[in-house]
Amino acid sequence: MTEINTTFDFKNLSPETLAEELKNRHFADSIDIINDLDIMERVTVFSLLPLDYAIELFDKPELEQPAAILELLPTNRSVEILEGMSADAAADVFQEMDRKTRTRLYALLKPLTRTELKKLTSYPNHTAGALMTTEFIAIPADWTVKKTLDHIRDVERTRETVYTSYVIDPKTGVLLKAVSLRNLILASPDDQILNVSTHDTPITISPFTDHEDIARLFQRHDLLSVPVVDDSNHVIGIVTVDDVLDTMVDEMSEDAYKFGGMEALDKPYMQINFLGMMKKRGGWLALLFLGEMLTASAMQYFEAEIEKVITLTLFIPLIMSSGGNSGSQATSLILRALALRELTLKDWWRVILREIPAGMSLGLLLGIIGIMRIVIWQQLGIYNYGEHWIFIAITVGATLVGIVTFGSLSGSMLPFILKRLKFDPASASAPLVATLVDVTGIVIYFSVASLILSGILL
Amino acid sequence: MTEINTTFDFKNLSPETLAEELKNRHFADSIDIINDLDIMERVTVFSLLPLDYAIELFDKPELEQPAAILELLPTNRSVEILEGMSADAAADVFQEMDRKTRTRLYALLKPLTRTELKKLTSYPNHTAGALMTTEFIAIPADWTVKKTLDHIRDVERTRETVYTSYVIDPKTGVLLKAVSLRNLILASPDDQILNVSTHDTPITISPFTDHEDIARLFQRHDLLSVPVVDDSNHVIGIVTVDDVLDTMVDEMSEDAYKFGGMEALDKPYMQINFLGMMKKRGGWLALLFLGEMLTASAMQYFEAEIEKVITLTLFIPLIMSSGGNSGSQATSLILRALALRELTLKDWWRVILREIPAGMSLGLLLGIIGIMRIVIWQQLGIYNYGEHWIFIAITVGATLVGIVTFGSLSGSMLPFILKRLKFDPASASAPLVATLVDVTGIVIYFSVASLILSGILL
Repeated sequence: MTEINTTFDFKNLSPETLAEELKNRHFADSIDIINDLDIMERVTVFSLLPLDYAIELFDKPELEQPAAILELLPTNRSVEILEGMSADAAADVFQEMDRKTRTRLYALLKPLTRTELKKLTSYPNHTAGALMTTEFIAIPADWTVKKTLDHIRDVERTRETVYTSYVIDPKTGVLLKAVSLRNLILASPDDQILNVSTHDTPITISPFTDHEDIARLFQRHDLLSVPVVDDSNHVIGIVTVDDVLDTMVDEMSEDAYKFGGMEALDKPYMQINFLGMMKKRGGWLALLFLGEMLTASAMQYFEAEIEKVITLTLFIPLIMSSGGNSGSQATSLILRALALRELTLKDWWRVILREIPAGMSLGLLLGIIGIMRIVIWQQLGIYNYGEHWIFIAITVGATLVGIVTFGSLSGSMLPFILKRLKFDPASASAPLVATLVDVTGIVIYFSVASLILSGILL
Repeated sequence: MTEINTTFDFKNLSPETLAEELKNRHFADSIDIINDLDIMERVTVFSLLPLDYAIELFDKPELEQPAAILELLPTNRSVEILEGMSADAAADVFQEMDRKTRTRLYALLKPLTRTELKKLTSYPNHTAGALMTTEFIAIPADWTVKKTLDHIRDVERTRETVYTSYVIDPKTGVLLKAVSLRNLILASPDDQILNVSTHDTPITISPFTDHEDIARLFQRHDLLSVPVVDDSNHVIGIVTVDDVLDTMVDEMSEDAYKFGGMEALDKPYMQINFLGMMKKRGGWLALLFLGEMLTASAMQYFEAEIEKVITLTLFIPLIMSSGGNSGSQATSLILRALALRELTLKDWWRVILREIPAGMSLGLLLGIIGIMRIVIWQQLGIYNYGEHWIFIAITVGATLVGIVTFGSLSGSMLPFILKRLKFDPASASAPLVATLVDVTGIVIYFSVASLILSGILL
């Protein structure tokens, strides 16, 4: 596998030699090296690199602090880079700039670039509008293959992808068909463009389609790019597969952090500063701790029962964790099904109808194991649960059925509830579910105990 | 967004009409409809669909039970489909077939197809070798652009992608460069192919590169395809971006299920049968339950302490969950960092050096909140923790520092340990970490209590 040569000692090179060294490397490798430099060294290197190469680097989301570099570069260099960048990347960088630099640079851009930037920065995060680029190829439907290929050759440099062109109505500008470069090179030059286009209607998305839906669509239809159309079916941009890969990796990380019960890190683990990491972890941890305090309150409420039958306390951790585990299973199941659009909001009752028998069966399984444990320990004399040990065993078994059912049910419903309330369902983390179930677990346990042991031990 | 028309009532159509209806739809939509049919209806539809269209459907991983359909189709139809399919998809289907059908169909395939299938089925799962297709375009380095384009037009139908061709040494067959279709259509026909190729060495992978590394490489370098080379740098196949997207979605699901503490489902939530789902959930749940039983043993060991200071039991759930939550945070952090290759195995001690102060700080935060809770409840008279409540508060606070540090440490080390033992680090689930930490939590809690309360309450 081609990999970055980590032993390359660039720290001692002059900026001139470094720029010379970099321009023959893969973009991603150069970015790794540049990201390790001080900000002023970066600015020097970018003023020395060939413009085309510099632009390519700025087009990658991996370049750190692009806005800061553009702020410090000579104004005309920054403008050249912004003009050369793909419109979606330029829009992202623009939004990170401080207001002063933004105003200074914006004034010097070409009117067309300005219009594009304005359009691209107007869509909410996590939508196609924020992800798309306006640099696509539109072909009037009355063109021939030759004219189309000539046009593609003309504009190639400024387009994000040339592998799909969009055929539009020459009068209304409405999207009619898509045509792949593959089909264009197979066709004879005089063919009408409509004859070599895909025969079905192109797959399109709206500027408000969210990242997960876009990724799903790319996967489903093996797309390399997809046109973003407005309400009247005019193409306003395209989303390309490389941007989709980037968002998928980001969202995988975000979801993993969230499910672990913390805020997503915006930097690699070893690079984020200590205080930054503490904030991302401490906030959630403290919040969950406050919620979990209710377990102490619940136990205080059952103080009398605990004092009478101390043996009951032995099984508190076992019972609570079983509720938490079954809840965390159910949540991870439903989160995936929602993300993959296998389930929608209105399916909640079908999920309930599956989770109730599922939870009861799983609870029964654990309940039987739990009862066996008490019976065996008692019979083998490993531990003495007292005269009425059989009732303790039944209490533990019955509680497990109740708590696992409750855990499965609440774990599966939490993502639905969050989604219904317009929160990200992925915020339903394993720790959050466990906290919810823990408090209820104690109430269930001691209520069952009161019921079964009343008159015997209570 | 273009979506499948779910109201389309295909159930009442004759197979002939249905086949007629399907062939004008997007492949993915047709697959959804076909997947809903009985197996015999599917076979009939596939015997009626145009061959080209049928082949395209078989090329998609979304088609369910392709092996069963090929088993039941007339032999010559099955052979035609297998010959037409892309080699990687055919290899996947072949591995799902029963031995008898496989032998029957294999004998009728062309020798070239047989060799390809043999090669593709020889690599382990989750590697580039199992994911690649052998249908790429190789161009001898002494060809011109015109000759190359003519060749591409000739073989286009049988190639997975034509957007990148690989330039090889005409004598040795060794990979020299890559050339994009984009550059080919820009060049003049008489240009030598080497003059229009990328100037740097192409990025390559080995047949044993794993899925996560492939995905990372595609994202890093914005690739549409990557050549798989053997030890002597001969191209033996290519991996295309659509396959990478498929594996990413699969691995996202797998990881999410695992982190939720269950085996990955192989079907959508609403489609998997009840017993199948119970197996995936029940196994892990029972295993975790058995582990968690150690908490009961630990508590039995501290029976004397519990009987003397029942107040201590009130905080057991709070303390245990704090350990579990901090562990689950640390695990999700490290799993992501390992998956993104931000960390490697040898970084384990750097992680320890970060997690010890992190855990202690977070523990201190929770400890202070915990102590405040006891002080406030006591002072406001909400609950009476007894004469020596201040020592109880200190015990809870000190335990929290210990348990959160221990949770962060063991949560962060578990993925390293699993990886070192050649297990999938993603098996380090939130429930598993919680179970590990719970048992230790009880031991820490009662040990700290013995230390602080000895002579006072114990």
